Amino acid sequence: MKEDFLLNSEVAKHLYHDVAAKLPIIDYHNHLSVADIASDRKFDNITQLWVSVDPYKHRAMRILGIPEKYITGDASDYEKFEKWYGCLPRLAGNPLFDWSMMEFDTVFGMEIYPFTRNAKEVWDEVNEKVRNLSATKILDKFNIEYSAPCASLIEDLSNFDKSKGICPSLRGDDIVGVNKSFVEKLEQVTNMPIQSLADFECAIEKRLEAFVETGCKYSDHALDDGFDYVADDEKNEERFVKVLQGIELSEQDKLQLSSRVLKTLAGLYSKNGFTMQLHIGAKRSTSTRLRKVAGPAGGYAAIGHPVNVKALTSLLDDIEKQEYGLPKTLLFTLNPADNAVMSILSGSYSKDGVAAIVSQGPAWWWCDHYQGMTEMLDHLSVFGVASTFIGMTTDSRSLLSFVRHDYFRRILCNWIGEKVEKGILPEDMEILSEMIRNMCYHNAERTVKGEK
Amino acid sequence: MKEDFLLNSEVAKHLYHDVAAKLPIIDYHNHLSVADIASDRKFDNITQLWVSVDPYKHRAMRILGIPEKYITGDASDYEKFEKWYGCLPRLAGNPLFDWSMMEFDTVFGMEIYPFTRNAKEVWDEVNEKVRNLSATKILDKFNIEYSAPCASLIEDLSNFDKSKGICPSLRGDDIVGVNKSFVEKLEQVTNMPIQSLADFECAIEKRLEAFVETGCKYSDHALDDGFDYVADDEKNEERFVKVLQGIELSEQDKLQLSSRVLKTLAGLYSKNGFTMQLHIGAKRSTSTRLRKVAGPAGGYAAIGHPVNVKALTSLLDDIEKQEYGLPKTLLFTLNPADNAVMSILSGSYSKDGVAAIVSQGPAWWWCDHYQGMTEMLDHLSVFGVASTFIGMTTDSRSLLSFVRHDYFRRILCNWIGEKVEKGILPEDMEILSEMIRNMCYHNAERTVKGEK
Amino acid sequence: MKEDFLLNSEVAKHLYHDVAAKLPIIDYHNHLSVADIASDRKFDNITQLWVSVDPYKHRAMRILGIPEKYITGDASDYEKFEKWYGCLPRLAGNPLFDWSMMEFDTVFGMEIYPFTRNAKEVWDEVNEKVRNLSATKILDKFNIEYSAPCASLIEDLSNFDKSKGICPSLRGDDIVGVNKSFVEKLEQVTNMPIQSLADFECAIEKRLEAFVETGCKYSDHALDDGFDYVADDEKNEERFVKVLQGIELSEQDKLQLSSRVLKTLAGLYSKNGFTMQLHIGAKRSTSTRLRKVAGPAGGYAAIGHPVNVKALTSLLDDIEKQEYGLPKTLLFTLNPADNAVMSILSGSYSKDGVAAIVSQGPAWWWCDHYQGMTEMLDHLSVFGVASTFIGMTTDSRSLLSFVRHDYFRRILCNWIGEKVEKGILPEDMEILSEMIRNMCYHNAERTVKGEK
Repeated sequence: MKEDFLLNSEVAKHLYHDVAAKLPIIDYHNHLSVADIASDRKFDNITQLWVSVDPYKHRAMRILGIPEKYITGDASDYEKFEKWYGCLPRLAGNPLFDWSMMEFDTVFGMEIYPFTRNAKEVWDEVNEKVRNLSATKILDKFNIEYSAPCASLIEDLSNFDKSKGICPSLRGDDIVGVNKSFVEKLEQVTNMPIQSLADFECAIEKRLEAFVETGCKYSDHALDDGFDYVADDEKNEERFVKVLQGIELSEQDKLQLSSRVLKTLAGLYSKNGFTMQLHIGAKRSTSTRLRKVAGPAGGYAAIGHPVNVKALTSLLDDIEKQEYGLPKTLLFTLNPADNAVMSILSGSYSKDGVAAIVSQGPAWWWCDHYQGMTEMLDHLSVFGVASTFIGMTTDSRSLLSFVRHDYFRRILCNWIGEKVEKGILPEDMEILSEMIRNMCYHNAERTVKGEK
Repeated sequence: MKEDFLLNSEVAKHLYHDVAAKLPIIDYHNHLSVADIASDRKFDNITQLWVSVDPYKHRAMRILGIPEKYITGDASDYEKFEKWYGCLPRLAGNPLFDWSMMEFDTVFGMEIYPFTRNAKEVWDEVNEKVRNLSATKILDKFNIEYSAPCASLIEDLSNFDKSKGICPSLRGDDIVGVNKSFVEKLEQVTNMPIQSLADFECAIEKRLEAFVETGCKYSDHALDDGFDYVADDEKNEERFVKVLQGIELSEQDKLQLSSRVLKTLAGLYSKNGFTMQLHIGAKRSTSTRLRKVAGPAGGYAAIGHPVNVKALTSLLDDIEKQEYGLPKTLLFTLNPADNAVMSILSGSYSKDGVAAIVSQGPAWWWCDHYQGMTEMLDHLSVFGVASTFIGMTTDSRSLLSFVRHDYFRRILCNWIGEKVEKGILPEDMEILSEMIRNMCYHNAERTVKGEK
Repeated sequence: MKEDFLLNSEVAKHLYHDVAAKLPIIDYHNHLSVADIASDRKFDNITQLWVSVDPYKHRAMRILGIPEKYITGDASDYEKFEKWYGCLPRLAGNPLFDWSMMEFDTVFGMEIYPFTRNAKEVWDEVNEKVRNLSATKILDKFNIEYSAPCASLIEDLSNFDKSKGICPSLRGDDIVGVNKSFVEKLEQVTNMPIQSLADFECAIEKRLEAFVETGCKYSDHALDDGFDYVADDEKNEERFVKVLQGIELSEQDKLQLSSRVLKTLAGLYSKNGFTMQLHIGAKRSTSTRLRKVAGPAGGYAAIGHPVNVKALTSLLDDIEKQEYGLPKTLLFTLNPADNAVMSILSGSYSKDGVAAIVSQGPAWWWCDHYQGMTEMLDHLSVFGVASTFIGMTTDSRSLLSFVRHDYFRRILCNWIGEKVEKGILPEDMEILSEMIRNMCYHNAERTVKGEK
């Protein structure tokens, strides 16, 4: 990979090499296997590390017509590697083309582009390197200060290690989706009997203490396509009891109960100094066939309709009215047509002494690429304030994905360089360097350290 | 401020300096205090002139975590200035950064960037200049031919002065929102008893004469998030009588009645040669807390869901079917995702001999910046016809905001220069100069003079 | 026209001149008059060929305020030409400005820009050339391998000529819109009695054989603003019988029946190796007045609300569940705010061995210009895979519109050149040339030849 990859101006080169590249990484939300990290897992071959765990790559292979056998099926690891490797020249323009180069360069010290070497040769060469690595050795190749694999409220936290900066990011969807089985598990893990909604909320609050102790500073909720929110109608105790009795709620009753629980949780996040991530706009049910083949997170999700602004603002308003007000809230949108809607909300709520109490999060999931990041930054800077940006997180299942922080930093520095050339940003290294430091590291650091 | 600020090509520099910069300003819709202008108000300090009246700045301070005390609270004017001034270096990329530079340069002849001078020094220096100025002296610094502060139908118009080009822009929302108190005031101001919807529409038509006499050529309506329109069901007389009786209408009845009144008004605008502005897509109810603190126009409004196209096209269609057809109609969108939807409508309605009877208005409110303007122009030129563009208006509450015409003209000239470099626009100074003249001045002039 | 029109880098120039420009044209969906082609129609003057058949030009004239008399009214052909010609300098930035230049250059060998010559002179000169041309002589000026004017299922196909590559593209809207008159015509053309939905579907399948024999490889459906889809409720036989009895169905019943028929048709397309085009998001009912004046396809259509993602994904899912699975499916969006939504769906469905079984189609109709194409490519390359792109089709009613393939190829090559300069695409002529060949020709060729 070229030293100045994606850096197309002197300002960009200076900001990247002298400022951005030197900062530690805070990856405040990902899907890494904390068990793999705790056990320092070793890998047999490149497929296990590079292909099998990465639904982005599965998706690209499907688009290129690769039979499912070679994606999630019973083909050998070598065959899967060979197919994926063969796809790469046809992926020019897609972020996977760049990420693949960066992953090989950073983790294995190999120049894989232009993808013309014999697949078997590459397989042999890289596997030797793979076998000398392990989960923690890979992490050591990046300057990671804090990494937060997500965990359910009822999950065992013993694999996390606050002293090493491996802390949980609370995945809250099963809490909000209230069901009997989850309630029973929460009873067990907290040793508190739950017979009412009030009990449930007490148990949640109690269990959050364990997350606080493990260094948790972030939570997240998926507000998928069709998201709605309704104000509490004071009948949720009754609904909760029905759930305990195993009675299936109507869609409207589910909405009432989940709205209530989400609002309560947000208050607890605020009380505990957590940042709340709202991941908005995924359309997860697309192909029933692929769901059966590839499971619920198999990379075939789509982008939903523009967000229900009325519901989102009502939710934030109702949270703000509660005792502890709004927690620091990050809005992630999967639909880039909502970038303006999301970024403007930064000015619609406030908290004395806290910058950007509501703020757009980084370009997310299918938007995590040059164009998505650039558009997100474009909107944040004019509808909000760029210098308050929380910065990148990978949200990834792959240990190799930390290269995306480098990718983001290059794109950010180049974005600034382009704006300077056009006169939209001042050629003022003091202001610009401070922006970079805040946007790549310090704003996230403040949320982790609990500073304002 | 640099002479060639934002002008990045020779074509842009030529078009700006030799054509655009020399044209007078027509500001066909703003929120200036016409009382301040009539009384030639003087200001005690820079905060009164620069910060207190500008909700954009309040919003930016909130995003940066400044306590409300220093925004709308009981802090002193100096403290408020100091806080705002301290925010500026962190606002790089946001239009307020540029506007602040331009306001100081144009009105006070001071170079405020890089915002590193001691706040007290700047305060003292600029206040001396502020005390030597007044509302009209500030206006004289700009080449303003026509300025239209908005006024309600029932408002006293004696502060307007047609001979000086200070004419009202009719704010129609309280007419359409039909309520008893408004009707009673209209009875008083017109001296016409109103006992039916027919009476109400007669009184409106009568009262419009006063606006015509005062030089009014523009009206505006807010079609906020959730906007809908329904065809007249012939039951609106009954609904209107209920309003007079003090009976609260259902939401559906309100929609019926407001749809009818808006359609009637549009016909009157057409009859009187007014241009009708539709400001589409604001989401005004966000934080209940901020509404209490900062009032209804306190800068915390957000951007709504994409427009209801079916309702908008039905409204325009029903207006077109009436006796006087469509008035010149400007569609402003707060949601930039609707730019294509808005600009295409220019070709969906027509009037013999009138260019762009329906046309997208300039980038509005939160979209009033480099990116918003550029995107709006991009869409207008390919989905509509750029040369028919009505041009900029500030829509502002601040006397200093006329610098935004200069901002717009620089961005427009630069936008053209970039297109020429790419071969998308011809390097043809005759065609391009004529575009500039029409887009910065003549198209608006024609609406003011009632030409086609 | 300049040789390097729109080509702004060395990479772009090389890719265009050495690769793209040499490839044949496959125009897989248009609205040409196949009767004109079969009869080798001659034209009296330039207006008949250039203006009368082109609703894009009518629309632009309306935006410029040209009275309808000179557009669709009783003015002479010369007057209509004169008015249109006079509009051109005011259309800079609009694609019609470029297309007009290209049409004159390619078909008549005349340089019409800067549109300043006397209209009468141009009229005389070009008409001489027009009279020496004919429909097929015009087509011969382009390197067309396959051209597919659309045809209804009940239309006579004798004017098509598979040996010359003039094959039908099946327009399916009247099938899905099930009405008695259509059913009766289908009975006649197939000689099969239709008394049930099952009969109807048999007759459709039978009639498709004639399309297969005539070389049909493409079908299309309009999913207009307000599009919805519902799962089959097993009551459609009853609804179909009501249609046969002349009973008007409710809107909900129509939706049920059309959803069922569309799903069935898609299965037949898959069985027959057709590619299914879904044209999504037109808002066709705008001005009632213009509909009367200019007919249903008169150029005043608008852009609808963002697509109903839930309905679209349910439709695709239900099609995939059927015996033959999904046909190759192209999603065209009229609303560019849906570009991400459309392009991501490429990864949400798959078929072993087929690239991009669901794929975004090219920028369509009002989006068919520099900006629309560039945005579409931007999205396809990051949310999908650019190299799988099906390529351009004109969708036009005008014989001259084949210049738009050249327009597209220039824009595509320039788009790649810009990405290379920024480091987003590799400067790798092997990869890039292969992209061009696939995106301009081979991907479409594969659908026509029935290869995977």
